[in-house]
Amino acid sequence: MSSTPRPLPLPAALANDGGRQQAATAIDVARLAGVSQSAVSRTFTKGASVSKTTRAAVMAAAAQLGYRPNLIARSLITGRSNIVGVVMAHFDNQFFPPLLQALSFELGKLGYHLLLFLIPAGADFEPVLDDILRHRVEALIMTSVALSESRAELCRAAGLKVLQLNSRTDSPDIASITGDNAGGAATIAAYLAASQHRRYAMITGMDDNSASRDREAAYTRWLESHGLGAPTRIRGDYSLEGAAAAARTLFSGTTRPDAVFCVNDHTALAVLGVARAEFGLEPGRDVSIIGFDDAPIAAWPEYRLTTYSQPLAALVDATTQALASLLDGTGAPAEQVVVTGQLVVRASARRPATGIIRDGDGREIWVPGS
Amino acid sequence: MSSTPRPLPLPAALANDGGRQQAATAIDVARLAGVSQSAVSRTFTKGASVSKTTRAAVMAAAAQLGYRPNLIARSLITGRSNIVGVVMAHFDNQFFPPLLQALSFELGKLGYHLLLFLIPAGADFEPVLDDILRHRVEALIMTSVALSESRAELCRAAGLKVLQLNSRTDSPDIASITGDNAGGAATIAAYLAASQHRRYAMITGMDDNSASRDREAAYTRWLESHGLGAPTRIRGDYSLEGAAAAARTLFSGTTRPDAVFCVNDHTALAVLGVARAEFGLEPGRDVSIIGFDDAPIAAWPEYRLTTYSQPLAALVDATTQALASLLDGTGAPAEQVVVTGQLVVRASARRPATGIIRDGDGREIWVPGS
Repeated sequence: MSSTPRPLPLPAALANDGGRQQAATAIDVARLAGVSQSAVSRTFTKGASVSKTTRAAVMAAAAQLGYRPNLIARSLITGRSNIVGVVMAHFDNQFFPPLLQALSFELGKLGYHLLLFLIPAGADFEPVLDDILRHRVEALIMTSVALSESRAELCRAAGLKVLQLNSRTDSPDIASITGDNAGGAATIAAYLAASQHRRYAMITGMDDNSASRDREAAYTRWLESHGLGAPTRIRGDYSLEGAAAAARTLFSGTTRPDAVFCVNDHTALAVLGVARAEFGLEPGRDVSIIGFDDAPIAAWPEYRLTTYSQPLAALVDATTQALASLLDGTGAPAEQVVVTGQLVVRASARRPATGIIRDGDGREIWVPGS
Repeated sequence: MSSTPRPLPLPAALANDGGRQQAATAIDVARLAGVSQSAVSRTFTKGASVSKTTRAAVMAAAAQLGYRPNLIARSLITGRSNIVGVVMAHFDNQFFPPLLQALSFELGKLGYHLLLFLIPAGADFEPVLDDILRHRVEALIMTSVALSESRAELCRAAGLKVLQLNSRTDSPDIASITGDNAGGAATIAAYLAASQHRRYAMITGMDDNSASRDREAAYTRWLESHGLGAPTRIRGDYSLEGAAAAARTLFSGTTRPDAVFCVNDHTALAVLGVARAEFGLEPGRDVSIIGFDDAPIAAWPEYRLTTYSQPLAALVDATTQALASLLDGTGAPAEQVVVTGQLVVRASARRPATGIIRDGDGREIWVPGS
């Protein structure tokens, strides 16, 4: 712990107001420095003109009073709060906390902080939106919750700029950043076909989720168009309990699938547990289970989950770019960005004879034809 | 998707300003409603007097313009932003995202939202504190990061109210809410002793963390005072890699411990993996491994971790109470609240012959003498 000098005692008027300390204001600083309030304001405004002596007096007074320029007051003048709202649901899904952290770090570098709105599963989003609109956030990142057309209209009317991360709406006006749901699901189907499976299944998420719909459609389309028929599909609900129940139904049927695509890693983790503990099925040998996300936990030795990745760095990079374009208000059309991933090969699904290579990070990935 | 009527088109002056829509202001609403700006303000202030017709005109205009009372402007008048800052480190630790979610839900019920400051492991906290002070948050919850005395002084000078969650400082002026670090660690020592172990070890966290220090001291004290000698202690660093390295050192020594207390569940998860995959040791049979936290993952079938719990609901409840007491500024002395947990019995440590009972939630817990 480094030792820093103790600040000077506060003037009595500031230090003692019935037991509560109020933050020092620009007026306090101006009074103590013996300068005008405008001089204080100019000292703290980038590029504004102020003499050396005035600046020195202001800085000394500010340090003594613990004064910080008030971003809230400033936001009323500049229209900028430096705050971005983030709405997130399914926070128990192991993919989301790392995504939130990556967003926080990268937006932090740009001077933005996150006002967090976590939504309980199945909760109505309307009251939260009301709440968000009452705070002056500069933009809103909707993660894993889709904005309906009527709510998008509300945001537009209130001047709130919105982008979707990890889901999309049908509106071309709202920018979205998603992983490669269609490409990834088709790759998973191709991988399972290359490793000689016979009975394909999928545990989906909820139908109101675009990622689940897109993955289901592409997986089904690939299998059907390659003469393998439509997969058995069963609904999960993004909860571990829902996924486990879906797995029990699948595994106790008369024609047990030998290849199960789980809509995301969170679902797959529960399915792995049910396969092993309740049915004595060893993933990768007796049944192939594949996820989607490549959440950090997918690599842990207890899971070794084969999965299609949604690369965090690239997702967050695309998000900050989309945000910058939203905020500078050039009126460029909203982009629908798709970030491609890789089929990361681990132990939970049977491996095909060819196509597995090692990438620059030392991971095994599947690149058919390589 | 429910169909809601589309709002009326916006007045041209609002809808068309070079491609950008600005949020409607109270002035816009007053103009459209044909009332004074003060009437608009009164309509949106709880308990303020306003006639029925005026209120109706204001509400109709507000709906048409998508107007929302601006909490930021209001916060300048009332001094309230309804925003609480949360600083969190070690976000990859499975205990913290559920803690953040519980905080978000409970504070949300009280009308507060969280401005999130995630700190990279080992990062300097000083610039973040600067940033926090520039936003007008009503209070700051420091989670798993301890505020040094010099920084506490900075916060006091700036009028920022702070409380510590899951760690404490040595200052009696700063309220803290922690789990029962001393009681929990002593209970773990007693549990391991009751199940007849011989060589005790502990993998700690970092020494600058009060929770790690308190747990280490109590574990050591219990063992020494019961004639079992000081445990082998080895430093982890709260990362999975650091925990795995510590486990390798412990397990490859000449006198391998048969009882390992891991400073938290996060550490224990890595140790379980190393024990099984690298040393062929089955936890609960060949070696006993106990964690601290009872993060949700501790109950998953791949881990079945015996651990001392830090009950989320009670921690968050104590936090909201401490926060309320801080914010109403009665000047009551800062409380150091300790939330007790339970030794939750699962499969990763050998069970003692007596004392295991089932609690109301169906969990097995250890209550010596029961």
